[in-house]
Amino acid sequence: MEKERGLLIVLSGPSGVGKGTVRKAFMQNAEEVQYSISVTTRKPREGEVNGVDYFFKSHEEFENMIENNKLLEYAHYVGNYYGTPVDYVEETLQSGKDVLLEIEVQGAKQVRKHFPEGAFIFLMPPSLSELRNRIVNRGTESTDLIDNRMGVAKDEIELIDQYDYIVENDQVELACERIHAIITAEHLRRDRLAHKYKNVTEV
Amino acid sequence: MEKERGLLIVLSGPSGVGKGTVRKAFMQNAEEVQYSISVTTRKPREGEVNGVDYFFKSHEEFENMIENNKLLEYAHYVGNYYGTPVDYVEETLQSGKDVLLEIEVQGAKQVRKHFPEGAFIFLMPPSLSELRNRIVNRGTESTDLIDNRMGVAKDEIELIDQYDYIVENDQVELACERIHAIITAEHLRRDRLAHKYKNVTEV
Repeated sequence: MEKERGLLIVLSGPSGVGKGTVRKAFMQNAEEVQYSISVTTRKPREGEVNGVDYFFKSHEEFENMIENNKLLEYAHYVGNYYGTPVDYVEETLQSGKDVLLEIEVQGAKQVRKHFPEGAFIFLMPPSLSELRNRIVNRGTESTDLIDNRMGVAKDEIELIDQYDYIVENDQVELACERIHAIITAEHLRRDRLAHKYKNVTEV
Repeated sequence: MEKERGLLIVLSGPSGVGKGTVRKAFMQNAEEVQYSISVTTRKPREGEVNGVDYFFKSHEEFENMIENNKLLEYAHYVGNYYGTPVDYVEETLQSGKDVLLEIEVQGAKQVRKHFPEGAFIFLMPPSLSELRNRIVNRGTESTDLIDNRMGVAKDEIELIDQYDYIVENDQVELACERIHAIITAEHLRRDRLAHKYKNVTEV
């Protein structure tokens, strides 16, 4: 039987919804999934480690990667670049392992063009007021930046139609369970599996 | 917020794969799902109860239901009729509850026409030789009937392309877990949920 290609899972959603928190919690119980570390020019937040949370790069280094087509997607977002290294994603999928991307909404749109068969998950805040609370409580942004982020977030939610699934981030553990169910179900989709069973009646 | 319509889940697969066993095990841990009892003209097997496993009807009673459009689908299969009462399914979905149908492959094809948005699950035997074992071990069929059923089963597996998901019935508990994941994921699909979130940015 031919080796089955891994599944690309894209976790995105508006700024402040808690993508990073959900992704970290999810990866603690997801041995079958490989997290694809993003590249960014933004400064590390407290506790963030280079090569674990992100690859932190200068603007110049990042722009070199763009020029050399080393990024599957990238976005310029609230003053910084965020991107996904393409080789790593492709090699991991080829090896049969699932890959999780946690990326901004702009980037997800670009990834869809290259991986129409991916499972695109939109992480949704319970409400916009709750989203604002989360951005404020993060405590890393000025009031102006918060207003800016809220405006961006509203625009991002308008792009929900480009996703396959909507997962509400009411509680991190519940969100993780939902993502696990989505991945299990995606692996059972007939259009992914039909090649395995096509010849079963000829055996 | 408008009441969300229930999800129709169709569990089908070749004769002898264990649809009834999986369905019974599944329903023991599926409070949110209503099983739609089928109508049949076949004789009850040992332990089967009228109104629980099936509604057992005479050929004449069944043909009256056909004439009066009281069946969502029906099939004439190895000498007997099997069908699904339409009113019950529609009312349960309207009430917001999910409905599980466990039906033959012929019937599933008819249901797809009325419910293109349903989640259609094909229960797959680990192999054809294992399928033959299961039919033989059931002990209710003569050798001729077993050969007949195996021929039908091969034709049924050819229809796999009409399904959304393929669930291997290697172990009943594993098959049930997979079906649970499918139902969870289907409820998270954006095309089912978008109406819920469409106006969130206007609040």
